[in-house]
Amino acid sequence: MKRITFLLVAVATLAGGVALTAPASRPAAQEAAPIFVTKIPPGYRDWRLISVAREEGSLDDIRAILGNDKAIKAYREGQLPFPDGAIIARIAWSYDSSEENNKVFGRPQSFVAGAPKNGVQFMVKDAKKYAATGGWGFAQFDDGKPADVTVLSACFACHANIKERDLVFTRYAH
Amino acid sequence: MKRITFLLVAVATLAGGVALTAPASRPAAQEAAPIFVTKIPPGYRDWRLISVAREEGSLDDIRAILGNDKAIKAYREGQLPFPDGAIIARIAWSYDSSEENNKVFGRPQSFVAGAPKNGVQFMVKDAKKYAATGGWGFAQFDDGKPADVTVLSACFACHANIKERDLVFTRYAH
Repeated sequence: MKRITFLLVAVATLAGGVALTAPASRPAAQEAAPIFVTKIPPGYRDWRLISVAREEGSLDDIRAILGNDKAIKAYREGQLPFPDGAIIARIAWSYDSSEENNKVFGRPQSFVAGAPKNGVQFMVKDAKKYAATGGWGFAQFDDGKPADVTVLSACFACHANIKERDLVFTRYAH
Repeated sequence: MKRITFLLVAVATLAGGVALTAPASRPAAQEAAPIFVTKIPPGYRDWRLISVAREEGSLDDIRAILGNDKAIKAYREGQLPFPDGAIIARIAWSYDSSEENNKVFGRPQSFVAGAPKNGVQFMVKDAKKYAATGGWGFAQFDDGKPADVTVLSACFACHANIKERDLVFTRYAH
C-alpha cells in the first residue's frame, strides 16, 4: 500500500513538472505543454485603457491595464470568452509619493507612477495555440527580455482561478 | 491713510470677485475673466494613457490621466508649452479593495478601480481663448453635467503652482 501511494505521488509530481518546464524538453508532450509569448506586442503603449490598480505587498506598484482593439471591443460588449487576437497588457510602475503634488495640496496624499517596475505583462488570446493554458499565452518582459519560463508558469496557475471571466481578473473601468 | 488702505482692499476683493464669477455677469471684463469648457470632449475614454495616480485624503480615488493625440505627442517630445488643441483628461474611480483578487493572492493587497468618482476633468489648451487662465480651459463634469464655476476657479488657482510645466502636474509614465 505504501508503495502504491509513493507511485501516485511520483506521477502527480511528474505531471506538475511537465506544466512547469519548457515544452522543448519533452517533445512528446508539446501539444499539452504551455507555450509562451516571446515577442513584445508592438505598439501596446498606445492601446486604450481597461483599468488601473494598486498592488501592495511584495509587488508594491501602481498599474495600468491596456487592451488592443479586439480586447477593448470584447470588454465593452461583454464578450466572453475573449476572441482570438485579443491582447491585454499590464504595465506597472513604482508607487511614489509625490512631494511636488503634496506641497500644493498642503498634505501628504498624492502617489504617482514612478519608474517602470515588475516588468510588462501580456495575455494573448489564441484558443488553439495556447490550448494548454486556457487559450491564453502569457508573457512578461523585464527590460525588454522575456521572463524565465518558471515565472510564466505561475501566470496560468494563478489566472486559472478566474475561469468565469475567461482567466482575466481585471474588470473594465467605466 | 485708513481710507486709502480700505480702497485698496476693496479693489483687490473686486478683482478676486471677477476671477471667481462667470464672465457673463461682467461683459466689460470678459477678456480677462476665465472661460470654462462646457462640453465634454468627445471620445476621451479612447485616448492614450499619460499616467496613473492615487489620491488619498478627501479625494480618496485611483485615477488615470489620458491625452488626445496632440497632448500625447507633446508629452513624448517634451514640448512645452503644450500646443493649442492639446487636451488632457483625468478620470477617477473609487479606490476599492478587491476581495476577489485578495482571495487568489492569499493576502489583502489588491486595490482596483470601482465606481466613477470625483467627476471627469479636462484641461483644454488654447492660448488665446483661455489667456486669463494660463492658456488652459478647465472643466469638470459630474454625471455629465458641468461643475459649478466656483469649483472650476479652484482648478486654475492650484494648477498655477506648476508654471514650469505649463500648469500640468502629471508627468508622462514611461
